[in-house]
Amino acid sequence: MKRFVSVRIAHLLALCAFLLLSTFAQAQTDPLPSWNDGASKKAILTFVKRVTTKGSPDFVPPPERIATFDNDGTLWAEQPMYFQFFFALDRVKALAPQHPEWKDKEPFASLLKGDVKGALAGGDRAMLELVLATHTGMSTEEFEKIVKDWLATAKHPVTKQPFTEMVYRPMLELLAYLRANGFKTFIVSGGGIEFMRPWMEKTYGIPPEQVVGSSIKTKFELRDGKPVLVRLPEVNFIDDNVGKPVGINQHIGRRPIAAFGNSDGDLQMLQWTTAGTGARFALIVHHTDAAREWAYDRQSSIGKLDKALDEAKAKGWTVVDMKNDWKRIFAFEQ
Amino acid sequence: MKRFVSVRIAHLLALCAFLLLSTFAQAQTDPLPSWNDGASKKAILTFVKRVTTKGSPDFVPPPERIATFDNDGTLWAEQPMYFQFFFALDRVKALAPQHPEWKDKEPFASLLKGDVKGALAGGDRAMLELVLATHTGMSTEEFEKIVKDWLATAKHPVTKQPFTEMVYRPMLELLAYLRANGFKTFIVSGGGIEFMRPWMEKTYGIPPEQVVGSSIKTKFELRDGKPVLVRLPEVNFIDDNVGKPVGINQHIGRRPIAAFGNSDGDLQMLQWTTAGTGARFALIVHHTDAAREWAYDRQSSIGKLDKALDEAKAKGWTVVDMKNDWKRIFAFEQ
Repeated sequence: MKRFVSVRIAHLLALCAFLLLSTFAQAQTDPLPSWNDGASKKAILTFVKRVTTKGSPDFVPPPERIATFDNDGTLWAEQPMYFQFFFALDRVKALAPQHPEWKDKEPFASLLKGDVKGALAGGDRAMLELVLATHTGMSTEEFEKIVKDWLATAKHPVTKQPFTEMVYRPMLELLAYLRANGFKTFIVSGGGIEFMRPWMEKTYGIPPEQVVGSSIKTKFELRDGKPVLVRLPEVNFIDDNVGKPVGINQHIGRRPIAAFGNSDGDLQMLQWTTAGTGARFALIVHHTDAAREWAYDRQSSIGKLDKALDEAKAKGWTVVDMKNDWKRIFAFEQ
Repeated sequence: MKRFVSVRIAHLLALCAFLLLSTFAQAQTDPLPSWNDGASKKAILTFVKRVTTKGSPDFVPPPERIATFDNDGTLWAEQPMYFQFFFALDRVKALAPQHPEWKDKEPFASLLKGDVKGALAGGDRAMLELVLATHTGMSTEEFEKIVKDWLATAKHPVTKQPFTEMVYRPMLELLAYLRANGFKTFIVSGGGIEFMRPWMEKTYGIPPEQVVGSSIKTKFELRDGKPVLVRLPEVNFIDDNVGKPVGINQHIGRRPIAAFGNSDGDLQMLQWTTAGTGARFALIVHHTDAAREWAYDRQSSIGKLDKALDEAKAKGWTVVDMKNDWKRIFAFEQ
């Protein structure tokens, strides 16, 4: 009898161990642990299963599993203004001693007095002028070093975190999950292509050749027999709105099967992606969490989400409610 | 004694089998069987070993193993004229009924009379006019279909082979060998990016997103609610000469460690590649085989190789002598 009981106990212990282990394994294998269970997470998992299941009518061969991601407001934050613009402001300050004429010239004059709002009163034109004045004139290699040096020390004005820490954990998990399922992940952003490339490989696991963005023209020159590419103060391409499908076609040459954005600037990319044949996926990150991040949409000057939100609802695209869908937004939380 | 002899014979047979098998295995594992043993083949094998040997001072991590290839004259033939130009000529004939005005307008008039030389008397301007007239006005998807349909039936005027059969076997082996060693292979060609992408994945194993080329502008439009990209009669980018490093930087964003070309149009790409730090490799395909292919260099209007040949000699770049270095050029030979 004693012997029988021990055997029963041993069986029970084994059963418990099995149950514990399988629960643990299940927790371990959730590919999106920072996402709450809900419609958004389910839509992602269902789509990936559909296109990766061999023999399924929706199966997509790996080379065609192209996924494109906007950056500002989709993979990292964009408030109180685009991070690249903080970079431009710091560059104006750093370069001011070499530009005495800026003291009397807008938008530089206001900026140097600390009046960012005044500087931006000139709208897109002022913004472009600031970018061209601070992003050009040097070689591509020199610019890369300037960006890296800035990122190593610059801090976000509200969170006091390095800008590369202001990336969304749920989206990092999503990038890794898609890649683990044979997707090739691309950035398609209105941001400067050479402002993004120096840090995206480390932060997102996306190599420079998979980054599409806005660009200025460059010119090949031999300097003392050494070839350089000089950055010219002339716009080459604006990768936003109607520019996004153009940029996708130019760089990737294949229509994505999944696209991820957060604003009206992403609308055409989502339209272009979902207009293809076969299974398609479109997702919009809706900024609804004023406590952990920011809450904004139709009225915002940065990352305005209005038309794309209406179209998402009309077409059944996935709209992520950051407040309710995301368990944890930033790695530095708490 | 008889027994002893049989054992000896068995041993000898085993030895013979071993020798035969190891010779066979060696032949099997030669990654470049269409290359004769010589300086060019050795230079390639040595470079790949240097950058892929862990712990070697020249080791390059896989993400940085970028190799760029010119196309015309480097991966496929380019005589008696660039193959894309045969496409343009066939398109002029196909479109002529819709363009009665072409009968009195150069370069179309000469061309429609069968006078290719006369049509080309207008030089680059005439060539550009022919390309813009035949390559634009349709959507990107329509253009892709036109290219594919043409390639399915068009034949090279001399060899009577489909153009996609006019690819160099030794270079196909080289592409595969580099990829097997962790390289990412890119096309960087003066040819039209959307003329090349439809067939390169199948022919070279290079996906559309790794093809860099010349391009015309495109415009995003909604046609009956369906998004299309319309090809405009306006040059966007010329990916040749000084344009090649610009195109590499724009699309890849990382300097190649190896580059392959055949003409002066590739010189700046080779300069840009070899000016980087660490181990670098530059190779020029020299057309020296008038019997199996064509022989041309300094005096040729197509694929002129003059300055780049001098620089290759001065800098010790690898120059492939097609006649002596390549065992077999085309798959259809004999």
